[in-house]
Amino acid sequence: MAVAYDGTAYCGFQTQPGKNTIQDKIEEALRMLTGEEIRIIGSGRTDSGVHARGQVFNFYTQSSIPIERWCLALNSRLPEDIVVYKAKEVSPEFHARKSAKRKTYRYTIANSKFADVMRRKYQYHHPRELNVEAMRAGLQQLIGEHDFTSFCSRKSVQLSHVRTIYDAFIETEPLTMPWADSSDRIIHVTITGNGFLYQMVRIIVGTLLEVGEGKRTAGEMAEILRAKDRLKAGPTAMPHGLMLWSVVYDEFHS
Amino acid sequence: MAVAYDGTAYCGFQTQPGKNTIQDKIEEALRMLTGEEIRIIGSGRTDSGVHARGQVFNFYTQSSIPIERWCLALNSRLPEDIVVYKAKEVSPEFHARKSAKRKTYRYTIANSKFADVMRRKYQYHHPRELNVEAMRAGLQQLIGEHDFTSFCSRKSVQLSHVRTIYDAFIETEPLTMPWADSSDRIIHVTITGNGFLYQMVRIIVGTLLEVGEGKRTAGEMAEILRAKDRLKAGPTAMPHGLMLWSVVYDEFHS
Repeated sequence: MAVAYDGTAYCGFQTQPGKNTIQDKIEEALRMLTGEEIRIIGSGRTDSGVHARGQVFNFYTQSSIPIERWCLALNSRLPEDIVVYKAKEVSPEFHARKSAKRKTYRYTIANSKFADVMRRKYQYHHPRELNVEAMRAGLQQLIGEHDFTSFCSRKSVQLSHVRTIYDAFIETEPLTMPWADSSDRIIHVTITGNGFLYQMVRIIVGTLLEVGEGKRTAGEMAEILRAKDRLKAGPTAMPHGLMLWSVVYDEFHS
Repeated sequence: MAVAYDGTAYCGFQTQPGKNTIQDKIEEALRMLTGEEIRIIGSGRTDSGVHARGQVFNFYTQSSIPIERWCLALNSRLPEDIVVYKAKEVSPEFHARKSAKRKTYRYTIANSKFADVMRRKYQYHHPRELNVEAMRAGLQQLIGEHDFTSFCSRKSVQLSHVRTIYDAFIETEPLTMPWADSSDRIIHVTITGNGFLYQMVRIIVGTLLEVGEGKRTAGEMAEILRAKDRLKAGPTAMPHGLMLWSVVYDEFHS
């Protein structure tokens, strides 16, 4: 299934003892609908406050509910900040995390004097000027297979920090709101890879923001990679600007 | 001053005893900033849950703060769902309500199978099909000077219900989200007039939705106007789809 959610009110996607998570809400809705105790498998965790446009999860069920009825039946049992929008029966080997071929995240920055009140929970507001060309040059250096230890939380428990970034780009759009100055714009940082480490996108963006502010050069991104040291990279960008954009599989995509 | 706000958490713009309002928050910020007990004058009230992109208010102050500093100084004292973005010194005769020349409201309908979780507080979700051409034909009949008693809450205390609608139109935009069917779309109903009665836009939209659903014909809009009877019109549409878009004056606009 594919699910979109507003992560504002949740302690991330994945179940944690004593915490309010999106997984818990989905499993509760599945229990109400089917009467079964179903454990879902997500494509990966998203941090507290991070949103998803295209998170994917799978599960096993005995239910005879026809596939086309699942979304509406679940949505009527889910809170309004979680919407399941795609359901497909897949092969028994399908595993939302292990079978994922590529994942895309998008981080959005409101580079504007005033924050947009209606988008404030989905954009990081950065009023100071940013050099987007320098950010682009910095981001390009991360494309390919690398050890991303420098761009990974030190809390990571992964054995390997080697990941491949297939594509990474920055788009800007003008602000059409009445409070916009001519220099105001929205900046989207989109990164596609075979997998992402804990806080990897947020640390990449936090470092790119320093490049954009002129505190670092674009060329430093390659040096930071080589150092394999989290302390060499910039701060972890705020979670609310981040969105899990899509996950692609051989037999499904969000 | 021009102010944008997310109305979700508030009991409308205008101060009411014992209620949490946007006016209270602005007056509190003005008191913190200037030390003066300032009473602001808004262009008009907005209902509980209604948003504003371009609300306007004025006030009198002894403060010597330069005009270009007011917005940032106030925003740092306002909650994050209220943003003041334009400040101008105007003539002493200026009155945000009485001097307003025209006001524009926009109502947004997500006419889609699934609600957009990230926009759910700013769009009314209507999953059933709507005939937008019929809605357009119905809306056109309201343009001009009319007695809008049928499209006004019976709680209104206005002496006259005659208002002029200068312009009213419906725009649609396709939904680009992964959950969108090809027939899904966003519908914006934009209405500009010299003033609006209590719940007038929401009752117009609630009636147009019945036209769009085929429960009424477009031609009935003119009959409803003539009846001058609130019971002839449709229900009051939900507040969260409504946004005070802009207010225009001779010496200021939002």
